[in-house]
Amino acid sequence: MSPKITTELLRQLRQVMKSSKYVTEPIQAYIVPSGDAHQSEYIAPCDCRRAFISGFDGSAGTAIITEQKAAMWTDGRYFLQAAQQIDSNWTLMKMGLKDTPTQEDWLVSVLPEGSKVGVDPFIIPADQWKRMSKALKSAGHVLVPVKENLIDAIWMDRPQRPCKPLITLDLSYTGIGWKEKIAALRAKMVERKVLWLVVTALDEVSWLFNLRGSDVEYNPVFFAYAVIGTDTIRLFISGDRMADPSTREHLLLDSSLEAEFKIQVVPYESVLTELQAICVGLSPKEKVWLSDKASYALTEAIPKAHRYLTPCTPICIAKAVKNAAEIEGMRRAHIKDAVALCELFNWLEKEVPKGSVTEISAADKAEEFRSQQNDFVDLSFATISSTGPNGAIIHYKPVPETNRALSGNEIYLLDSGAQYKDGTTDVTRTMHFGTPSAYEKECFTYVLKGHIAVSAAVFPNGTKGHLLDSFARSALWDCGLDYLHGTGHGVGCFLNVHEGPCGISYKTFADEPLEAGMIVSDEPGYYEDESFGIRIENVVLVIPAKTKYNFSNRGSLTFEPLTLVPIQTKMINVPLLTQKECDWVNDYHRKCREVIGAELKSQGRHEALQWLLRETEPITKMH
Amino acid sequence: MSPKITTELLRQLRQVMKSSKYVTEPIQAYIVPSGDAHQSEYIAPCDCRRAFISGFDGSAGTAIITEQKAAMWTDGRYFLQAAQQIDSNWTLMKMGLKDTPTQEDWLVSVLPEGSKVGVDPFIIPADQWKRMSKALKSAGHVLVPVKENLIDAIWMDRPQRPCKPLITLDLSYTGIGWKEKIAALRAKMVERKVLWLVVTALDEVSWLFNLRGSDVEYNPVFFAYAVIGTDTIRLFISGDRMADPSTREHLLLDSSLEAEFKIQVVPYESVLTELQAICVGLSPKEKVWLSDKASYALTEAIPKAHRYLTPCTPICIAKAVKNAAEIEGMRRAHIKDAVALCELFNWLEKEVPKGSVTEISAADKAEEFRSQQNDFVDLSFATISSTGPNGAIIHYKPVPETNRALSGNEIYLLDSGAQYKDGTTDVTRTMHFGTPSAYEKECFTYVLKGHIAVSAAVFPNGTKGHLLDSFARSALWDCGLDYLHGTGHGVGCFLNVHEGPCGISYKTFADEPLEAGMIVSDEPGYYEDESFGIRIENVVLVIPAKTKYNFSNRGSLTFEPLTLVPIQTKMINVPLLTQKECDWVNDYHRKCREVIGAELKSQGRHEALQWLLRETEPITKMH
Repeated sequence: MSPKITTELLRQLRQVMKSSKYVTEPIQAYIVPSGDAHQSEYIAPCDCRRAFISGFDGSAGTAIITEQKAAMWTDGRYFLQAAQQIDSNWTLMKMGLKDTPTQEDWLVSVLPEGSKVGVDPFIIPADQWKRMSKALKSAGHVLVPVKENLIDAIWMDRPQRPCKPLITLDLSYTGIGWKEKIAALRAKMVERKVLWLVVTALDEVSWLFNLRGSDVEYNPVFFAYAVIGTDTIRLFISGDRMADPSTREHLLLDSSLEAEFKIQVVPYESVLTELQAICVGLSPKEKVWLSDKASYALTEAIPKAHRYLTPCTPICIAKAVKNAAEIEGMRRAHIKDAVALCELFNWLEKEVPKGSVTEISAADKAEEFRSQQNDFVDLSFATISSTGPNGAIIHYKPVPETNRALSGNEIYLLDSGAQYKDGTTDVTRTMHFGTPSAYEKECFTYVLKGHIAVSAAVFPNGTKGHLLDSFARSALWDCGLDYLHGTGHGVGCFLNVHEGPCGISYKTFADEPLEAGMIVSDEPGYYEDESFGIRIENVVLVIPAKTKYNFSNRGSLTFEPLTLVPIQTKMINVPLLTQKECDWVNDYHRKCREVIGAELKSQGRHEALQWLLRETEPITKMH
Repeated sequence: MSPKITTELLRQLRQVMKSSKYVTEPIQAYIVPSGDAHQSEYIAPCDCRRAFISGFDGSAGTAIITEQKAAMWTDGRYFLQAAQQIDSNWTLMKMGLKDTPTQEDWLVSVLPEGSKVGVDPFIIPADQWKRMSKALKSAGHVLVPVKENLIDAIWMDRPQRPCKPLITLDLSYTGIGWKEKIAALRAKMVERKVLWLVVTALDEVSWLFNLRGSDVEYNPVFFAYAVIGTDTIRLFISGDRMADPSTREHLLLDSSLEAEFKIQVVPYESVLTELQAICVGLSPKEKVWLSDKASYALTEAIPKAHRYLTPCTPICIAKAVKNAAEIEGMRRAHIKDAVALCELFNWLEKEVPKGSVTEISAADKAEEFRSQQNDFVDLSFATISSTGPNGAIIHYKPVPETNRALSGNEIYLLDSGAQYKDGTTDVTRTMHFGTPSAYEKECFTYVLKGHIAVSAAVFPNGTKGHLLDSFARSALWDCGLDYLHGTGHGVGCFLNVHEGPCGISYKTFADEPLEAGMIVSDEPGYYEDESFGIRIENVVLVIPAKTKYNFSNRGSLTFEPLTLVPIQTKMINVPLLTQKECDWVNDYHRKCREVIGAELKSQGRHEALQWLLRETEPITKMH
């Protein structure tokens, strides 16, 4: 991988930083954040501005360019990749290391007195603006919003914003019609005494209107905002998408309808001016509800006295708690996904010994098997297919330069998932196609114990996911081992594979309590640098638990695995398991046999069925 | 308990709220927080202003008095007590319940437009001021500092601020001399580039100078501030205490000394003016270090540009990580404490069947046995001696009206501790002097499993205590049970029995990582309202753990119990324990026998020794 040569681009950027065409007064620094105007985790090519200016295309990182310097902040997952992708014009700022300055501190240390620092107000979240602005101000500088994006100004061949066709989802998939969702939302707005709600997250707009898109790779969303009033609905979306008859019918655009459900379609770009117009008409004490993670531009458009900011919009929570139809859909999706993986692992078992399978061809084969399943739409993220030392790179994606052949001598880790019209999957299995070493089995078994500890945990209603994180680590900790990532994330239903507001991580303190109907991943791991990686991941559904007692009538919760793919028993050091853990493995495999076995049979996939039966033989603890 | 009649007091308070003698302009509301000027958890009688004005004397609560209304905010521990102690002039605001307004929201809802809300700037912590001030401002009101405390203005028989003699501690107790502590502190100040450090917490002043006092019941502290400069030391303390020759000698007040260790003794009351004077002399970029929990008055005295605020002062962390002499002292203190408790429980076993022992007399007897031990100074908190239903009141303190006789039919819970010159203890044991029911044993066993899970936990260096909290609950959760308090708090060394900055709680997210040498309590419980309470509490020392592997060279930690008092095996449902848990109990009891047995023998306490031997018989799991 050779770095991108950015000398000329930086020269051009520094020119526009002083050009009155773009800025009223010259700015001495320009911040290029990672996200898009919707604060998405994954972004479209037209929004990859930081990658364009620097060459570094990881999912997290902020670039700051001053008159003399250029610096790139990123986290531990990307130190190596960023170092390879940026040229000598750039300084790499390794976040989390002791001596790395924060962006604020660095700016203060390099800026001439009384400097102006610019940023696109649509790209920077309001909370980050606030922190940065405060720090700069106290050092005598000022953070200024620059309306026109300066990267766009020098990006000649910038891709168009995607505007792909929409998919409409009927009640059999969504369980609740969009009118009903809007009515429920308005009830929440009345409860909180707000008059308006601004929806900025792409997956929230998609969920609310029961529409899907494909504007962002792997994420079935489309570029749009929505503003919901007590009797109006405005959908900000580029108009030509609304030409499609099935979309028009789905949204009842041509039907006579109660006024409060009549959707006004407004151009995507006009969201700011429309919001400003709404705010002009507000009486004192009338409030507008917005996520506190929304862009500075939209937040600022609402006068302070009218702002009602929360970490979580009511849509975010409603979306996280899946209804019966969504749960059914997620079950179906996971059954189909398991069928594809049984096929894949059966195929790998035969092909790997021949030496012809690589990380890339295995990933392709997984996609091929998945695409054979009903309602398959796309993958849900870039497949992590890694063998041996590549497995220790947590966010590994095989490319020709690193592509490695699978063999009987190395652990193989496959973290993959798909988007089906009825649900989203995300599953990791770690396999050995030869004879694993005692140490590999030992580590695998600790990871499995952690996986089971979370999956089988019983906990009171109202418990936040981060309180369960240590359960996943306890067996590893006992032996001095650990893994440097969270244990689980929320999973959307035919939506983003990472979604808030719940999760299981030592880091997440702003997570919402777990509720029955929420769906999260359970994915502890262990990674030995330059040697191997182990991760065992199921997607699990939060369900009520039956307990012997019921303290304070609070009720209890536990998890039910939706993922039903065998866990390779060859990798287990059975004596390290307790009897309860043994029983868990055998119960889980019995369920895989029953549910996935039936589906394999009905799809006529007999060889994969035989593989499943072999792989789900019960294990026994010697006494 | 009959409520305090506050009609006349409130009338007087409302008068001074309008009196130009006290306020420049009339105020429409006055806030009376719980703490003192040092933000102490436990306070002296002269600082019990909220109790004076309202009658409610719990350890947590805030009173707000407006021209028409009076309201009292307190938390779940005190709903019942507060309701009994306040009269009909007051509205009880039950914090944590869904419909209870915050203080800010309530004020905004009741105040006339453009109101002034007053508070004593020395009593309100800076962070609370900030939140309150912001909320009031956004509603058109203003929070104003009222220099003279308005409660003091109407409190005719207000007690004097205590000014009790000081105790000096020599190196055998403290391990480090005060000059050495100051030198280490100054090294930290250089590291952080601060010129001054203001010490406001009473236990930090005590620790820094190796002095103890008794100004606050059970807390061996004294009223003082310290301001440490790079070459000056100012101790703000009422001067007559410095008349004592041993104190003068300890602080080297009359010795010729390097200038930078010369202590200037300054009147307690002059801290604000002295701090202001210091700040006037600061050059740009010169900083003053202060805890972000310090009072608004002191925080405000430092101009914003010169403030260096952290959640934790370097003294707070140095104090939490005990040195070898302190650890030795804590060990000795816990051995003596265990001797006293063996005597007590042996005595109870004989006396309870006679029907003559009550909660109060048992608590008195515990104090009597403790006071026989070497270097005994005081109790470390009000003894919680509770039997039957009283045990379910987590913060119960027996008073004549509620005093209950111990019997063979009820569970007895004793949570008690002492201050010895060499250390502070805090131990809870739950006993039955008859035959416990199967249900009581079952609950006790779950609590014990939780206690063991924390005590035996192995975790990486750098882990924060709150990540261990769920280990204590897991066995209870499995059966639908839980307890509504944290699992552990930091414990001082002959200092406050509750100290920061570490702890084990689902609530504490600002806790500092656990380090070898820190000392915390491990005290899960289970409480069945109107029936019984169970709690098992040891004080435990954080120690390095030997592990099979050592991921990333981080090293691991675990706990060693300092408390060595038998856990009543009669209460254990042994089949519910795992073999590992059984082994833990037997190992623990073996250590109690060895260490406490030897001490009982050397103190000639033969009957208590026989009791110890009986109570520490190994348990066996049937196979």
